[in-house]
Amino acid sequence: MEGSSDEKAEVVPNKKVVLRRHVTGFPTVEDMEIVADTVELRVPAGLTAVLIKNLYLSCDPWMRERMTRHDDADALLASDFVVGEALINFGVGKVIDSTHPKFKAGDLVWGMSTWEEYTLITQPESLMKINHPELPLSYYTGVLDDPMLVNYHPGMTGLTAYAAFMEVGRPKSGDFVFVSAASGAVGQIVGQLAKIAGCYVVGSAGSDEKVNLLKTKLGFDDAFNYKSETDIAAALKRRFPDGIDIYLDSVGGETLDAALLRMRRGGKVVVCGMISQYNLQEPYGVRNLYLIVPNAINVYGFNVTGYFQMYAKVEEEMAGYIKEGKVVVVEDVKEGIESAPAALVGLFAGRNVGKQLVVIARE
Amino acid sequence: MEGSSDEKAEVVPNKKVVLRRHVTGFPTVEDMEIVADTVELRVPAGLTAVLIKNLYLSCDPWMRERMTRHDDADALLASDFVVGEALINFGVGKVIDSTHPKFKAGDLVWGMSTWEEYTLITQPESLMKINHPELPLSYYTGVLDDPMLVNYHPGMTGLTAYAAFMEVGRPKSGDFVFVSAASGAVGQIVGQLAKIAGCYVVGSAGSDEKVNLLKTKLGFDDAFNYKSETDIAAALKRRFPDGIDIYLDSVGGETLDAALLRMRRGGKVVVCGMISQYNLQEPYGVRNLYLIVPNAINVYGFNVTGYFQMYAKVEEEMAGYIKEGKVVVVEDVKEGIESAPAALVGLFAGRNVGKQLVVIARE
Repeated sequence: MEGSSDEKAEVVPNKKVVLRRHVTGFPTVEDMEIVADTVELRVPAGLTAVLIKNLYLSCDPWMRERMTRHDDADALLASDFVVGEALINFGVGKVIDSTHPKFKAGDLVWGMSTWEEYTLITQPESLMKINHPELPLSYYTGVLDDPMLVNYHPGMTGLTAYAAFMEVGRPKSGDFVFVSAASGAVGQIVGQLAKIAGCYVVGSAGSDEKVNLLKTKLGFDDAFNYKSETDIAAALKRRFPDGIDIYLDSVGGETLDAALLRMRRGGKVVVCGMISQYNLQEPYGVRNLYLIVPNAINVYGFNVTGYFQMYAKVEEEMAGYIKEGKVVVVEDVKEGIESAPAALVGLFAGRNVGKQLVVIARE
Repeated sequence: MEGSSDEKAEVVPNKKVVLRRHVTGFPTVEDMEIVADTVELRVPAGLTAVLIKNLYLSCDPWMRERMTRHDDADALLASDFVVGEALINFGVGKVIDSTHPKFKAGDLVWGMSTWEEYTLITQPESLMKINHPELPLSYYTGVLDDPMLVNYHPGMTGLTAYAAFMEVGRPKSGDFVFVSAASGAVGQIVGQLAKIAGCYVVGSAGSDEKVNLLKTKLGFDDAFNYKSETDIAAALKRRFPDGIDIYLDSVGGETLDAALLRMRRGGKVVVCGMISQYNLQEPYGVRNLYLIVPNAINVYGFNVTGYFQMYAKVEEEMAGYIKEGKVVVVEDVKEGIESAPAALVGLFAGRNVGKQLVVIARE
């Protein structure tokens, strides 16, 4: 079945997760629906494309923004998802058919895909081969991935965590590091990189289960459940009596405000996302930003698209840490495409424990 | 009268501006008082010190913070002014007597001084000689000064403007630059440096007189009066249809929020001060900060203390620009120490047009 031919190809079912309506506020599973479709298992004649079978699909906070319709011509973000069409995000797949010289049937690849069982990739240059198939393939939706082709910040994990912390944060041994959403996809990698760099690292998360995970499995020096703290500033003061050198922010809002009160002179706030803000009609007003002047704090809005050139280096370095056991990966894996809407919605309620992904097929 | 001797030295009147009470909210002239004192015109026996006659005293926004009493042990700012003692800030003076080998009577110096007619400088290492006495001496309270000795951000002009814009902002020819408080001490220098760097520069200020000054005397490409604009975001959109590359912020608050909406991808916000925030009990909440993530914007809290090593270079470069007429300096000069409290208070109402200073004596 390699390459397109005149023979009739097999036609198989192809379930999709499509957007039913644009979203305001918190997304719900009813904003999406599962649609039964079919697909012919080959690249249509005349197209240079790759047909992949999706194995793992990634659920990421950045998808929320694309679920909203932006009428404002000033919107500087990625294009909105289209009602009636499948959602789009990173995934890992296996090549079923290819008319592109770089790929052949059986290749394992990752890249931007759609939320369905099979996807015809019409821009095959966007696909990346998987260089370490000896590691769990799902890691290529997370710790080993790289959002090569998006113009919008994807909040993806591996390169984001590495570049945001190592390149922008520039940790020194002994630095005091705070990580929010610490058991999440980016946070868990940042925390472990901080330990590798010789830092003291404290994480915040939204459940006791996650806090326990940070302390027992992910090597954080300390962690706390922000939902059971009445005063996040006080919680940070107890854990950082001498202040914070680097804050890796994925949540924004009150946690950012509290962290600004504890930043040391010359401290760095690297903002990879503000998940607390994505579903708000009126964003939270950050009151303590004025402290950046007397304390010479820099606040970096991190967008991974500026760091693509680092991917090969980061993939090798992270694969090495994983094999040495210096970095462990905690995934929250849901089974089957039918579970994808709930998995995505759960991100915004903090239901996921670790990197959220959906397994569509194992081979 | 050079050096300390056993002869009796002349005793002369020495009026001071002392803090009468700590301040909350907007400062008023009643928070200060003029106190008649006297001074012996020589360094007391046994001290290594320099007695200076103050010629020009600088009024700067950063003094506001020191007028408040900070009970919080966490306060990371400079020490508070003491009730009943003279205020402290940069000034230009002439040496009357010295027991320090680096200085002799008649030297022109600048540095941290006190708000009185004569000041005994007990840390003479803090004084700087004036290297360009051919320029107006008052420029050493502003465009040619350097806040060498403070631990707190002084918001001083010359080095702040240069380092914040040239070193942190790193302008490229053709960049779109926005400057708030643009006719003020820092803003007017930044705007002119932006033109030297080949940028398009727009300033905001709080009166039509200041706007006119920006456009006719200081070389800004455009300027607007933020007080007569009902929607600052719309005002910026009209003037920056393609967005802003560098925003030099001295005001914070709503102007910062509006500018965040117009920042281009990869833009830089360099915050030198937030004068709109200094008198508020509850700081303004910055709602558009979340945009730093998708647009990869960095927000730099600028504190000049990290740039001391550049002073000699900046003094020479700025002196050159002034002599060539590429940089002009607009000062708001009040006469006599009795006018100092009103001059300082006027800063926070935006009454000053240009760098605010007080002439205590001309020789």
